[in-house]
Amino acid sequence: MTTIALDLLGGDGAPAVVADAIAAHLTDPRGITLAVVGPAELTRTLLLERGVDPAHVRIVDAGRGAPMGANPLSTLRTHDDVTVAVAVGLVAGGLADGWVSVGHTGAAVAAAVLGLGRVGGMSRPALTVVVPSLAGPLVLLDVGAATDATPDVLRQLALAGWAYACALGVDDPGVGLLSIGSEAGKGDRLRRSTHDLLAEALPVEVRYVGPVEGHDVASGARARVVVTDGFTGNVLLKGLEGAVAWSAERMGGAYGDPGPAWAVAADTATSQFAGGVLLGVNGVTVVGHGAGTAAEIVACVRLADSAARMGLVPATAAALARISPAAARAAAAQADGSRIA
Amino acid sequence: MTTIALDLLGGDGAPAVVADAIAAHLTDPRGITLAVVGPAELTRTLLLERGVDPAHVRIVDAGRGAPMGANPLSTLRTHDDVTVAVAVGLVAGGLADGWVSVGHTGAAVAAAVLGLGRVGGMSRPALTVVVPSLAGPLVLLDVGAATDATPDVLRQLALAGWAYACALGVDDPGVGLLSIGSEAGKGDRLRRSTHDLLAEALPVEVRYVGPVEGHDVASGARARVVVTDGFTGNVLLKGLEGAVAWSAERMGGAYGDPGPAWAVAADTATSQFAGGVLLGVNGVTVVGHGAGTAAEIVACVRLADSAARMGLVPATAAALARISPAAARAAAAQADGSRIA
Repeated sequence: MTTIALDLLGGDGAPAVVADAIAAHLTDPRGITLAVVGPAELTRTLLLERGVDPAHVRIVDAGRGAPMGANPLSTLRTHDDVTVAVAVGLVAGGLADGWVSVGHTGAAVAAAVLGLGRVGGMSRPALTVVVPSLAGPLVLLDVGAATDATPDVLRQLALAGWAYACALGVDDPGVGLLSIGSEAGKGDRLRRSTHDLLAEALPVEVRYVGPVEGHDVASGARARVVVTDGFTGNVLLKGLEGAVAWSAERMGGAYGDPGPAWAVAADTATSQFAGGVLLGVNGVTVVGHGAGTAAEIVACVRLADSAARMGLVPATAAALARISPAAARAAAAQADGSRIA
Repeated sequence: MTTIALDLLGGDGAPAVVADAIAAHLTDPRGITLAVVGPAELTRTLLLERGVDPAHVRIVDAGRGAPMGANPLSTLRTHDDVTVAVAVGLVAGGLADGWVSVGHTGAAVAAAVLGLGRVGGMSRPALTVVVPSLAGPLVLLDVGAATDATPDVLRQLALAGWAYACALGVDDPGVGLLSIGSEAGKGDRLRRSTHDLLAEALPVEVRYVGPVEGHDVASGARARVVVTDGFTGNVLLKGLEGAVAWSAERMGGAYGDPGPAWAVAADTATSQFAGGVLLGVNGVTVVGHGAGTAAEIVACVRLADSAARMGLVPATAAALARISPAAARAAAAQADGSRIA
């Protein structure tokens, strides 16, 4: 059994769509207990309206949704009843194995960093998705946690992404640097500097395949880990989603029956691709689409459960420790205290 | 009748695939005369091998393919028989209405800038594609001519892209800045600075809709012109292509008959989406995929013809003149000498 905390107040359709997701989850809980973080009375009312016995979840009272503004930190620092902070607190205190929000990404990232702390060796956490590439699961990061990167940050992402791919069972996952050509000299200033660093300064078992291109993310043929800054990664991820929706419309139209094409598109949204795992914080954190459906929120809960079960946080810490002596000490201390082996 | 110059030696499959494209073009020439730029004897041999009478094209002798290295400029400056430079020379001299290469993008851009000069007010040309969005044609730029941009460069792209969308017949095309959220404060440093400039310093008839996201490019719902730096644009464009191929594979599989899905994917590659128009140089320049098929090269030739007929170069110059007095004088001079009204 794992316990996953769920932010009732995050997301465009909150709290109704989150309550729908709780009801859907309980029809097939897969050993996952939900800790629902939101106003307790509201939570009970929403569940009863959906014919759900509130006793089937843990209700954790928190009165305030995360702030949507550009600077969520000040609200988080001055109020202790914000749902994302309370959910993070459950993970930090060992009362939950992971947490999920489909609310404001910046607020979720800030709450996670404040409440869980960063993994040693990671200067900034990265939102990470598993793309169902034609070759199999492909780890793409950062897709939006931090917009401006440096070569050293991208090197950290290479290690964290590699650890994730290994934890997913990908054998010897090649790591590619997202660029605009496969030759070393291609790309902008950041990519040219990063290429040299990745070619020279990764542990020997992390196989750097060189620059890869946008189409390599959907194919997975050249690398199973693709590293980029959060701006480019977010643009690309949303571009892929848009192109799949475009294809469902156009290709479904070509067959005269859009059903199967839209089923493929919907399947990507309720797979491991449903949400992003925030790699680089000391606790399992999943951030989903603000416009996510109930089915997508259920998929985010399962993704958090899966990340907890596969030991993603200690795996990330161990990989980062390979390039940082300080991180090595922190990883050893964390492995001792890890709740899920 | 228009004349389009075609680089015989550019592209991964050159010269054979270019010769295939010439043969395919001649089955349905649509009033376009080809000026084939390559070694004259080789051109004749390749055409005869394909059952084509060499008299049906103009053969312009040039012995040397464009250099593939990181710095094509030095080769272009020291040799006068490079195919891209000779093709550009035909346009500069009024002997062709546009030119096409599917070779090295950097070499094509360098040859165009050297031989045609920049449009007044454009500090750097931008590779521009027309995406077949669900809402209709959408102009996306820069997709790879220049990797690092400034707010002022992105403002120039907004005007050039707006002129292209208008020339395509899009009514009041909204201009969006590619970012990672629709709120003004989102994005990296470049986007935050650019947003303020676009909101304040575009001519009144150019409607700036604000930041748009990756999925808005395939949908076209928020803007019909999307502006970004050449690094992000190239990653996104190739990502879209990869996602359409992914969808053809997965969705075609769901129907048990991949044919119609692949036909949709192939159709995007032989539409206006086949190649990029280099906006910002004083002559119609189309750069296609290095791995382009013969059908894609034919589509690039038609795209160049279409750009020439719609007066894209003078339209771009006129739009840029709105923000630059020097450019206004250059545009007026060019309009006087424009070959195709």
